[in-house]
Amino acid sequence: MTTIVIKIGGGEGIELAPILDEFAALVRSGVRAVLVHGGSHETNVISERLGCPPTFIKSPSGHESRRTDRQTLEIFEMVYCGKVNKSIVEHLQSAGVNAVGLSGIDGGIWAGSRKGAIRAVDEEGRTTIIRDDLSGRVESVDASLLELLLDSGRVPVLTPPALATEPDGTRVAINVDADRAAAATAAALGADELLLLSNVPGVLADPSDPASLITNASDLDAVRKAAGGRMKNKVLAAEEALVGGVGRVVIGSANGDQAISAARNGAGTVFEGVSA
Amino acid sequence: MTTIVIKIGGGEGIELAPILDEFAALVRSGVRAVLVHGGSHETNVISERLGCPPTFIKSPSGHESRRTDRQTLEIFEMVYCGKVNKSIVEHLQSAGVNAVGLSGIDGGIWAGSRKGAIRAVDEEGRTTIIRDDLSGRVESVDASLLELLLDSGRVPVLTPPALATEPDGTRVAINVDADRAAAATAAALGADELLLLSNVPGVLADPSDPASLITNASDLDAVRKAAGGRMKNKVLAAEEALVGGVGRVVIGSANGDQAISAARNGAGTVFEGVSA
Repeated sequence: MTTIVIKIGGGEGIELAPILDEFAALVRSGVRAVLVHGGSHETNVISERLGCPPTFIKSPSGHESRRTDRQTLEIFEMVYCGKVNKSIVEHLQSAGVNAVGLSGIDGGIWAGSRKGAIRAVDEEGRTTIIRDDLSGRVESVDASLLELLLDSGRVPVLTPPALATEPDGTRVAINVDADRAAAATAAALGADELLLLSNVPGVLADPSDPASLITNASDLDAVRKAAGGRMKNKVLAAEEALVGGVGRVVIGSANGDQAISAARNGAGTVFEGVSA
Repeated sequence: MTTIVIKIGGGEGIELAPILDEFAALVRSGVRAVLVHGGSHETNVISERLGCPPTFIKSPSGHESRRTDRQTLEIFEMVYCGKVNKSIVEHLQSAGVNAVGLSGIDGGIWAGSRKGAIRAVDEEGRTTIIRDDLSGRVESVDASLLELLLDSGRVPVLTPPALATEPDGTRVAINVDADRAAAATAAALGADELLLLSNVPGVLADPSDPASLITNASDLDAVRKAAGGRMKNKVLAAEEALVGGVGRVVIGSANGDQAISAARNGAGTVFEGVSA
């Protein structure tokens, strides 16, 4: 049976209903499917409404990441695990899919480590070290709970945070990149396909020109060079999935009538048989 | 093996860390335990911060219930399923318990129906009918997912909403009373005990006098008469659990050093062998 992991981004301008209906049809057709989702745009909106606008850390190399203190993590969990996850589960249940919403901390599915020290450049250009940021990366996936659910006809709907173990043994929820977490999940499940769908059509050679879509990622160096900003993580995720044994990865659009079919049929940037 | 369902209330003034540590010790001792939790106080706080203060429906008989429109439900889900549920899972995982946070809509665990029409009295004393409220009650519990988790050494942490099926077949998340949902869950699991722990010591004969605690609920009529406000639902939940075959129900305090042990040892209002 084909196993597919589909990640739907949480950026602005993604309409969930059509892609969830298509996902439900895919499940009904007998595919073993896991849905992973983000929620970044909605988190920014709710953060503003709560009077805690998001702040970002700028690294010495210019990379920006969300500053995640305890308050930010709580808002992040409210939006990802509460608002977005449950609205997806509700929609899928209504479409006849026995969806089970989980975060990466539930059942310890996504285990990782917290960044111990982040070098940040402040507004005056000085470099400081941030030691209490609740962000990090997924290092291992315990697929047993996902397998248990899939084997019993249930469909996991999975979202950050992940669970990090601190040096003193305590465990703490951390903000992780959902694309790379989806890739690790696809690898752990031995998935045939990973689809990373968001509000962009794929990797663009020229970010300002949608017609410059790189359809085939066989020239991996060119793809790496073209990918900037959030796309960097998607390309990294695709490479990690391939290294982990996933047969095919497509970075494509979450919008449109048949976004999943389109991506499976090659609309987007296709990674396949690339030795990374 | 003893099966226990413990409901921890979401009212003001409940300190979660001590009771979660005690719950973790209970799990490590080999008890099959399910945790159910609320989040009403925190929902009020976040609602205010989001500029959507909670509103309440007053029934012709004077009973008050939370008005749950779509926006309220989303905030409710953010707090119950995001903030509170994930902070509990994080704490339990840190205490060595393989907790899995779920809402009643995940896997269709709590199935029920939405109230089709609610008679409400407005400020001018006029009776109106509200037809779009997203609240209702749990009518059946599918314990199979909970059993699957428990049998594999995982511990479900369960919270509203529940899943209602509309006349047209669509499914919708609804706000339900967590005490009665916990009771239905205990009955479905064939639990030996149900503990309903909150910020009150039990059913008080005189609500203003903590010394008037009714320790034994064998005179059920007296208990029903004494219970007002939110306590009405706890007594109803206790009765429903007993009718459903649960051996023992205790309404007690969630605070204190050993709240769970205390309740199991009879601190609170004990329902046992009552023919309801």
